[in-house]
Amino acid sequence: MKASIITIGTEILIGQIIDTNSAWLGQKLNNLGVEVLRVLSVNDEMNQMLAAFEMATKDSDLVIVTGGLGPTKDDFTKKAISEFLEVDMYFDQGTYDKISAYFKKRNFPISSMHKEQCFMPETVKLFENKLGTAPGMLFEKEGYSIISMPGVPFEMKYIFAEHIVPYIKRQETENIYYRTIHTCGRGESMIADDIATIIDKAPDFVSFAYLPSKASVRIRISGSHSNREALQETINNLTEQVSSQLGKIVFGYDETTLVKELQKVMVNNRLTISTAESCTGGNIAHHITLNPGSSAYYQGSVVAYDNQVKEKTLGVKPSTLEKYGAVSLETTEEMVKGCLNVFNTNIAIAVSGIAGPGGGSEEKPVGTVCVSVGSKERIESKKFLIQKDREINIEYSTTYAFIMLRKFLLSDNSINFTQN
Amino acid sequence: MKASIITIGTEILIGQIIDTNSAWLGQKLNNLGVEVLRVLSVNDEMNQMLAAFEMATKDSDLVIVTGGLGPTKDDFTKKAISEFLEVDMYFDQGTYDKISAYFKKRNFPISSMHKEQCFMPETVKLFENKLGTAPGMLFEKEGYSIISMPGVPFEMKYIFAEHIVPYIKRQETENIYYRTIHTCGRGESMIADDIATIIDKAPDFVSFAYLPSKASVRIRISGSHSNREALQETINNLTEQVSSQLGKIVFGYDETTLVKELQKVMVNNRLTISTAESCTGGNIAHHITLNPGSSAYYQGSVVAYDNQVKEKTLGVKPSTLEKYGAVSLETTEEMVKGCLNVFNTNIAIAVSGIAGPGGGSEEKPVGTVCVSVGSKERIESKKFLIQKDREINIEYSTTYAFIMLRKFLLSDNSINFTQN
Repeated sequence: MKASIITIGTEILIGQIIDTNSAWLGQKLNNLGVEVLRVLSVNDEMNQMLAAFEMATKDSDLVIVTGGLGPTKDDFTKKAISEFLEVDMYFDQGTYDKISAYFKKRNFPISSMHKEQCFMPETVKLFENKLGTAPGMLFEKEGYSIISMPGVPFEMKYIFAEHIVPYIKRQETENIYYRTIHTCGRGESMIADDIATIIDKAPDFVSFAYLPSKASVRIRISGSHSNREALQETINNLTEQVSSQLGKIVFGYDETTLVKELQKVMVNNRLTISTAESCTGGNIAHHITLNPGSSAYYQGSVVAYDNQVKEKTLGVKPSTLEKYGAVSLETTEEMVKGCLNVFNTNIAIAVSGIAGPGGGSEEKPVGTVCVSVGSKERIESKKFLIQKDREINIEYSTTYAFIMLRKFLLSDNSINFTQN
Repeated sequence: MKASIITIGTEILIGQIIDTNSAWLGQKLNNLGVEVLRVLSVNDEMNQMLAAFEMATKDSDLVIVTGGLGPTKDDFTKKAISEFLEVDMYFDQGTYDKISAYFKKRNFPISSMHKEQCFMPETVKLFENKLGTAPGMLFEKEGYSIISMPGVPFEMKYIFAEHIVPYIKRQETENIYYRTIHTCGRGESMIADDIATIIDKAPDFVSFAYLPSKASVRIRISGSHSNREALQETINNLTEQVSSQLGKIVFGYDETTLVKELQKVMVNNRLTISTAESCTGGNIAHHITLNPGSSAYYQGSVVAYDNQVKEKTLGVKPSTLEKYGAVSLETTEEMVKGCLNVFNTNIAIAVSGIAGPGGGSEEKPVGTVCVSVGSKERIESKKFLIQKDREINIEYSTTYAFIMLRKFLLSDNSINFTQN
């Protein structure tokens, strides 16, 4: 099965919102074995929308449209669908009753605009939306189907999971299979050199891609074939070859992140951790606590944005700050010790750096970041030079902190990594 | 001038990366008066790429392509351009010399694959890329131009700012103008009702759009017209009408965020702040410290993920935790007091809640979040019920914390808001 994703709304084209819906849909469709041919974002303008439907229905079995179904006047998707399919609109009493009940439950007044939401193109099959007022819609035609969902991400995700997944599973699917290998600590072109002979010997129906991002590189091995078992075996086998060639830079497979893998190791080894953050300003804590179950190993953080806070709450010596500066390995090592003390954890991470745009000097330019990871027994520290913009400096510093934690854990032979 | 954006790479279609480049480009092009007709993401497959070029060059003056220019084997953009334009490839010695120098400076070995990067389609004009190995490329044809840039965001942004902006400014541009009004604390459909008469009376060349996200709604007023001054005057006038109709829910205009506006108010009034976070796990601190200059008013945070940390570092009474629970206004009010104490700031924010998926009860379901904002003189508190997934609960809680801070500041008549 082949699909096109169409997202509607000027706000995407002028960059006021980022199209995360398409990425989410692409991933889910891929996992279901549906090949996504394209993602097309267009204006909420009739001609643009008709051209998009024209292009997508030409080669796709499934056209998924998001956006343009809310209660306000900028919503045209339904009109475009009715024009494209050449059907009239009708007033759907069931939808009106549901919206009324939804608003009554929340004690909100029902707006006159919500009545407009109840007009539907004929031939529609409706998918209930328990999280909002606009239902999902399905139109089945000879050769293709159009599915339309609201653009609000959690409503779209709900309708997709509840209704679209079962619908797709009822259709035939082709054999697509892929694996992802996650690495950190080595550049894309060096990895490419390392595994060049494996790639050269791989069969034609398999392809390799590198996805570098913030001090890590993902390698995607994918393919399609009529024989599902042979396809899976080939790709799993190549995944093993690549992993054994690359060794310890590989930290996980498929749907995972460095933080999730670290959480597994920490929890399995009954280790606790705390963080002391300066330039990362809470971003390390945020990435840790995004994961359900993080409270099993994570105790808390001191975001010591001000030097006085570093002294008062973490016990960094004024003389250290004066002699070496706030951005120094001497300071981050004292921050680790203070952090272990405050939170009484097995391990602590400390980061201090210059995120920019101000605050740099010749000796310590913007992007200088010190990271220390340690326990009561030993501390490992490293200074990095990132030199990008503020936001990226913060994101890289956060990733380096996790890479340093992994390195710290790997060099302790008593820690069990087999869950990886 | 009309433009299409094409992004290349299977990783976008299968959702392994989110296409933030297109949003960034859309925003910049719009600011330059270039109308973006579409964003099209396709596979790195020759037929798909040729079809995308075909579609885009039909109605666009400018086709901007990102992605597919890195050193590894999955990069085909240049081959697709040379095929589409029917030109040959040549080895560009200048590019090779620059890559060699780039690697020498960083003490990295030059990979054999980088030599492939030096092959260029004929008729190319190269744009230097000081941040990476792949240069930007310009191809000027009768009726349209194609510009190609690497997909790595900071390299793409560098080439765009250095080379593409001046290039576009040399061409003619049409008159497009828009304003954005940022609001918080009121739903989309109620806002739509509030300003319905203003919208009905607005001229035809102006359009309104609502962009709801996480407890805030942006209203975009846009239009295009041959007379630039009249267009600007009309839209600025409508912006004022809408703002005065909506009153205090409006917190800013155009390129801004709630946090940036709060920073202005805090700094102008010489106020300092600190945060005590439980369920938001550092995300409030992260959003504050993302902004340059935040150190002028932000002192730091305690991420008190564990109850013992709430007691030990923030001085929350064990009896309070026992009687009311960690997720209670009684606890967040004590967290505010402790936070004021630890960081010695004028104001403190405290948040405690159940982000989920576990930890909910009938009395306090997942998504229950308590927020307190206070000074030594007074504290304002409110309990929210969000009930979405973990990540969204954390994001909403963070936004509610900032909305509560704004409410706290607004109710103090001595605080000057005129910079808004």
